[in-house]
Amino acid sequence: MLKDPQFKHLIGIRPLSNRIIDDIFKTATEFKEVLQRPVKKIPSLHHKTVVNLFFENSTRTRLSFDLAEKRLSADVLHFTTSGSSVAKGETLLDTVMNILRMKVDMLVIRHQHSGVAHFLTQHIDIPVINAGDGINEHPTQALLDAFTMQEKLGSLSGKKILIVGDILHSRVAKSNMLLLKKMGAQVKVCGPATLIPIHVKQTFDVDVEYDLDRALAWCEVVNVLRIQLERQSQPLLSTLREYNLFYGITQKRLAKLNHKIIIMHPGPINRGVEIDSQIVDCEHSVILDQVENGVAIRMAVLYLLSSSN
Amino acid sequence: MLKDPQFKHLIGIRPLSNRIIDDIFKTATEFKEVLQRPVKKIPSLHHKTVVNLFFENSTRTRLSFDLAEKRLSADVLHFTTSGSSVAKGETLLDTVMNILRMKVDMLVIRHQHSGVAHFLTQHIDIPVINAGDGINEHPTQALLDAFTMQEKLGSLSGKKILIVGDILHSRVAKSNMLLLKKMGAQVKVCGPATLIPIHVKQTFDVDVEYDLDRALAWCEVVNVLRIQLERQSQPLLSTLREYNLFYGITQKRLAKLNHKIIIMHPGPINRGVEIDSQIVDCEHSVILDQVENGVAIRMAVLYLLSSSN
Amino acid sequence: MLKDPQFKHLIGIRPLSNRIIDDIFKTATEFKEVLQRPVKKIPSLHHKTVVNLFFENSTRTRLSFDLAEKRLSADVLHFTTSGSSVAKGETLLDTVMNILRMKVDMLVIRHQHSGVAHFLTQHIDIPVINAGDGINEHPTQALLDAFTMQEKLGSLSGKKILIVGDILHSRVAKSNMLLLKKMGAQVKVCGPATLIPIHVKQTFDVDVEYDLDRALAWCEVVNVLRIQLERQSQPLLSTLREYNLFYGITQKRLAKLNHKIIIMHPGPINRGVEIDSQIVDCEHSVILDQVENGVAIRMAVLYLLSSSN
Repeated sequence: MLKDPQFKHLIGIRPLSNRIIDDIFKTATEFKEVLQRPVKKIPSLHHKTVVNLFFENSTRTRLSFDLAEKRLSADVLHFTTSGSSVAKGETLLDTVMNILRMKVDMLVIRHQHSGVAHFLTQHIDIPVINAGDGINEHPTQALLDAFTMQEKLGSLSGKKILIVGDILHSRVAKSNMLLLKKMGAQVKVCGPATLIPIHVKQTFDVDVEYDLDRALAWCEVVNVLRIQLERQSQPLLSTLREYNLFYGITQKRLAKLNHKIIIMHPGPINRGVEIDSQIVDCEHSVILDQVENGVAIRMAVLYLLSSSN
Repeated sequence: MLKDPQFKHLIGIRPLSNRIIDDIFKTATEFKEVLQRPVKKIPSLHHKTVVNLFFENSTRTRLSFDLAEKRLSADVLHFTTSGSSVAKGETLLDTVMNILRMKVDMLVIRHQHSGVAHFLTQHIDIPVINAGDGINEHPTQALLDAFTMQEKLGSLSGKKILIVGDILHSRVAKSNMLLLKKMGAQVKVCGPATLIPIHVKQTFDVDVEYDLDRALAWCEVVNVLRIQLERQSQPLLSTLREYNLFYGITQKRLAKLNHKIIIMHPGPINRGVEIDSQIVDCEHSVILDQVENGVAIRMAVLYLLSSSN
Repeated sequence: MLKDPQFKHLIGIRPLSNRIIDDIFKTATEFKEVLQRPVKKIPSLHHKTVVNLFFENSTRTRLSFDLAEKRLSADVLHFTTSGSSVAKGETLLDTVMNILRMKVDMLVIRHQHSGVAHFLTQHIDIPVINAGDGINEHPTQALLDAFTMQEKLGSLSGKKILIVGDILHSRVAKSNMLLLKKMGAQVKVCGPATLIPIHVKQTFDVDVEYDLDRALAWCEVVNVLRIQLERQSQPLLSTLREYNLFYGITQKRLAKLNHKIIIMHPGPINRGVEIDSQIVDCEHSVILDQVENGVAIRMAVLYLLSSSN
């Protein structure tokens, strides 16, 4: 796979051309095959050092990047806020400039503030990968979601994809909307009015449907967002039980439909809140495929962003 | 060493045949020799990925597994609860299924709930090693303890082994009783009546002795359990000073005996509580041998459980 | 570079001969060249295991050691207090003796108590590197500081070096004074009288100057210590604003001088407290050179301390 000189960082979906998306997917397909072999390691990033800077809690994303980096034979350094000088009052940029001067080759960053990954690219010249920034974007999640849909449906052009949940605070939803529209899909979002951004139609060119049954009747794929239990104290949600009644992906609700829907969820799942436990484990659920594809997609992004020397 | 197709996980001592125990010890003996060499690394798990899932604090067990894995050239991933999605409400099984779909080869798990390691083996098909589950079992600790005893005493058949302390809450005591009986030793337990399980004799086929002096006069080896200081608030113990007076392994107490006893402790030690500081460091103490053998035993278990392709 | 049999540990600056310092600097110069190459790794510590024992928070020092160890191809184990048996009441020496019996080759230790690194060398025979002990010493920091000064100024003999800030609580200041005097520099310290040790002149053979403007007019290099915000509650400092007015390295203050001063800071920086933000980033600041040199210096120390077999 030839590397594209235009592809220098992965901060968000907007700047990605369809050619680059296609390159990432083709490379991920190759890496996914590697991951089925007994020896899952390739030397592409041998002698490269990747730093994972996680300012927010994470399991699957951090482990997924960690594994992707190790599968590519990189040296991996971890930096998390606990036990760090961030608590001592140092600026983010000073922290990052320090790490860079120790001569590292790539940076993966997750941060609770939107725009942090983009901000860093204006000051540093090694590749930066956004592993989630505030309520802004989570591009590798969107890429692995779309890659998984394409595996099941072929080309996404014209496909009907529904995103259900807290669209307002979800970086996963935002990156998904941007990527799916770029790939020609039809996208609808569904959730309580308090959790749908007012200008979502104008900004992302997606439709809004407040009635979940109607939305499900329309779609071929539903991507179920996690309800962040910690938001329950805010006046945006009444109770989890009410959320489940109106916006939960339940067996009862799906049983009423005349067609089968592919079930997706970025995890971690609250079984019984945003989705019934049986739906998570049903044959149309591709939730664990998403996890598996996540490693391949992240390997592809790391590989394509790494310098060619 | 040929691998035994019956040996698929290490969850507890009960299912282990004496042949498998013997295999583990023979393999550990070989690995212990490797650990004396300048180059302590062998390629047995090269290209294998081992995940250490620690839901409970640990120093020596985690480091010991970490080192054992690295000595075998495995890629090692760490997962601890702090900074993880467990806090977000995900089920344990979902966490584990996610990690597995990232294509890892072995799982080492420590969890505060009894039965967790066994539960996982019913859902996943890669080898699982129990690094301690609640108050149930800690099989690698028992194996390294018995291995250390055998180094000093030869065959354990008929040997007199005393376990002193909080038998009720100790997974180390439980795994030790099961393994030592399997190997033909005579086992006695000693401690305050509040900390001895009522049916310990029926369940584990061991004797109970409440008088420490009489117990010490009988035994050839004493395995001293750590008093968990955090239990002091419970009405099971009066004061640490009283515990030390009645159940502490003190110089004074040992001086009264006509024979020498091998001193063992699984660590971490509370010097001056369950054992006198001088006894920890005396010539009959094999406490640091236990630590050294721990790496060799864990290497042996990892090696024998790893698939042969 | 031949290894010096006298150089067994790096605990503090005092026992270092000028020959050893020179060896460290020459080796660091070679390693700094290695760090400019695409392949930054050399096999010097291949098959060696280094344990980083950090009992105190750290970003740059921990990462810098981690990278130095990985650049030398060592296996690296991390041990931090959180999630460790230290909380369970084990003595430091027991913790360390346990780790050693797992057969590791070198120990890097940071601890909040002065003297801990030295204490360990009296009980263990593998090389120990002090990565900061209480308010005592931080020798690798002093070495990288002096190395950076020498890069800019040539021989330090007779050079005028100023250290500004909380000299009393700073292990960086102490190691700097000892090393700079050993290398023939003239050293002055400056700060509020409450933060200057009374016998600093007799103990370290350095001058004290309470007036920052006069001190700056004298020096060629200023090493600006970080103000530890957590000390503000103690009656040693009035307010950060007053500290900045009297002891802050400000643009206004530097503009009054007739000569240019090299600006150093061990980090993490409180911009606007002990130093103006613009001074941190000015052309005379070598703060990021210090960070880069830190990896090379630590590689040199690890290399020279490692046994030759």
